[in-house]
Amino acid sequence: MTTTLPDAPATTEGLTLSLDTTAVLDIRYRLDVSDNLFAQENTLLADNHRASSLGERRAIVVDGALPENLRERISAYFAAHEIDAHVLTLPSGEARKDIDSVLAVVEFLDTVGVKRTGNAVIGIGGNVLLDIVGFAASIYRRGIPWIRIPTTLLGVVDGCVSAKTGVNHRGARNRLGSFHPAEQTFIDSTLLASLPERQISNACGEILKMALIKDATLFDLLEQHGNELVATAFQHPQAHAVIERAIVGMHTELRDNLWERDLQRIVDYGHIFSPPIEMAVVPDLLHGEAVAIDCLFTAAIAEQRGRISKQDVERIHAVMTQVGLPTLHPMFLDVEVHRHALAESRLHRGGALNLPILDGIGACGFTQDVSSNELEAAAARLANLNGAR
Amino acid sequence: MTTTLPDAPATTEGLTLSLDTTAVLDIRYRLDVSDNLFAQENTLLADNHRASSLGERRAIVVDGALPENLRERISAYFAAHEIDAHVLTLPSGEARKDIDSVLAVVEFLDTVGVKRTGNAVIGIGGNVLLDIVGFAASIYRRGIPWIRIPTTLLGVVDGCVSAKTGVNHRGARNRLGSFHPAEQTFIDSTLLASLPERQISNACGEILKMALIKDATLFDLLEQHGNELVATAFQHPQAHAVIERAIVGMHTELRDNLWERDLQRIVDYGHIFSPPIEMAVVPDLLHGEAVAIDCLFTAAIAEQRGRISKQDVERIHAVMTQVGLPTLHPMFLDVEVHRHALAESRLHRGGALNLPILDGIGACGFTQDVSSNELEAAAARLANLNGAR
Repeated sequence: MTTTLPDAPATTEGLTLSLDTTAVLDIRYRLDVSDNLFAQENTLLADNHRASSLGERRAIVVDGALPENLRERISAYFAAHEIDAHVLTLPSGEARKDIDSVLAVVEFLDTVGVKRTGNAVIGIGGNVLLDIVGFAASIYRRGIPWIRIPTTLLGVVDGCVSAKTGVNHRGARNRLGSFHPAEQTFIDSTLLASLPERQISNACGEILKMALIKDATLFDLLEQHGNELVATAFQHPQAHAVIERAIVGMHTELRDNLWERDLQRIVDYGHIFSPPIEMAVVPDLLHGEAVAIDCLFTAAIAEQRGRISKQDVERIHAVMTQVGLPTLHPMFLDVEVHRHALAESRLHRGGALNLPILDGIGACGFTQDVSSNELEAAAARLANLNGAR
Repeated sequence: MTTTLPDAPATTEGLTLSLDTTAVLDIRYRLDVSDNLFAQENTLLADNHRASSLGERRAIVVDGALPENLRERISAYFAAHEIDAHVLTLPSGEARKDIDSVLAVVEFLDTVGVKRTGNAVIGIGGNVLLDIVGFAASIYRRGIPWIRIPTTLLGVVDGCVSAKTGVNHRGARNRLGSFHPAEQTFIDSTLLASLPERQISNACGEILKMALIKDATLFDLLEQHGNELVATAFQHPQAHAVIERAIVGMHTELRDNLWERDLQRIVDYGHIFSPPIEMAVVPDLLHGEAVAIDCLFTAAIAEQRGRISKQDVERIHAVMTQVGLPTLHPMFLDVEVHRHALAESRLHRGGALNLPILDGIGACGFTQDVSSNELEAAAARLANLNGAR
């Protein structure tokens, strides 16, 4: 094979050589919903292994928060299908979402002997665990494929169609991370059956957000069945409808903006005022709880602007109560905290605020400025909704 | 704005929902060659700053190995153009190419208050420093833009058109890293004037590689002027021709394969047997020195297969001597080391060896297997070229 040099490129004044290059990266990823993923007769995972890895070793990182019997079921599944699975159990929780956990996964991948292509590492757990595994996969050998199996409702409805990975660093949420979509995501709602009620409620914060910004039908489902959905840990006739509406809604918003080149995203609703508060009060407020209070607070701003009715704001408050979400944290009454959050948010969005703001329930626009007076008034309304006089 | 849900996606047997997504990431980057980049009348950098950052702070990471007067010139340049530049000086060298150095850059970016878009961080230094800065940029806030200004000949001819970043970890070269091309690269060959001769020779290892695999004219230039090019630290009438042939050659090979989806790359020539040896003997062999010996060793394999003449192998040996490159290290005579390197290389290339092998000087193919006998014979030929009987 002989290669010849291309013609000399054009030169600009003062420059002897200029090269301008465009390149395209194609990404393909897939999400499947299937019940009883780890039942031995469900061959979805085993088939995936056989198709992609040529019988090689399989590295699996499992969330230490999973119940013992589920972890045993996972190991038994791979053993029954004669897959040489190596399992690392990693403690999770927001406080462990750091670079040290990422490096622990890296050490595990080294030990298993994971290659650059082929045998994708599998993460099984909550969003924290999956964020850690996805980040480790993105930097190991400059990026290896990974498979995402969420075991929390938050992981199912929020994380599962996102390309984002990351860990907290120096007190800042997801300060380090990457865009590295899992090549395959498996959703199994039966895994949620044993989750504590607070975690289910927590995830309802993200479902509520999705309902508020684009899906009034989803809001109605929460309003009608929220109580029983939470009480049954989403083992309820309406659970699939709620989960799938939430997933499809998120997927529609993200698929054309996977790398967030467009920094104006309605899915950021509920995620503007909450991050510094969530970080400051760990572990008092879970992520979805902080998001939900932010949703209510931001709805109060919309109410002052006449974009949403008084009654609809009260419906939001009522649904939150119904699904077991907190409707207030004292830090949400501190306008100074919100001013800081708005500044941070601008920094994260290239200088623009891009604050999503409701136009009634199920529709959303953006605003580029919120005055201190408005923040004061919204805080007062939040206090009022929560019984202050 | 009201958004409606898409039609329900198709379902497969046993699955209640399946989503298959393809996404495309567009990347654009640019390389400019311009002499005297830090002369105050050269407005290239200042113009770039004004165009991209709206007068914001600029974070600059400078290689501690740069001469004091160059570092002063850099600071004076930004001061003269009234750019609010914050400079971190980072020690470099292969031994410092680790995750701790990356986290030091991250801390610096936090301190300067770098945003997610806009004011790209500038790295000025050798390849190690640039690999560290590029990696830090790729994981900071899930990826911020960066600008690459190489100050070594190796950085100019080898690193500058690559999308790769990375650091060593747990004894393995570039075990952690990413693909994150600098949005802009500036090349200034006058920066090379004060480099020590060994570093210039070192870079000739990569130029030699490029010449061997695809550019016989470049090989002729080295054969005719190698001596003076090194003696003048590439401040020589033929220097621009050599540098530009090397850059354009590399650019042509990489531009369509930035993420290395295609794991069969002729630019890997010289990079199969050398990595474990380079890591083992740090700092005895510099990168380009190890690469050059690998080039010669692999040429000896091609010679046994009748793909290159005895005379051409001797010309390669002679050019290496002429540009001041070592032509042997005892570890290259250890066949056990080479067997390990081949196994590692397969691991890095999804199971295939894809060893580039010369077809004369200036052309290259691939082989998928090298026998132990061939390794023995090539080691003997290497010893023989170096005067053993």
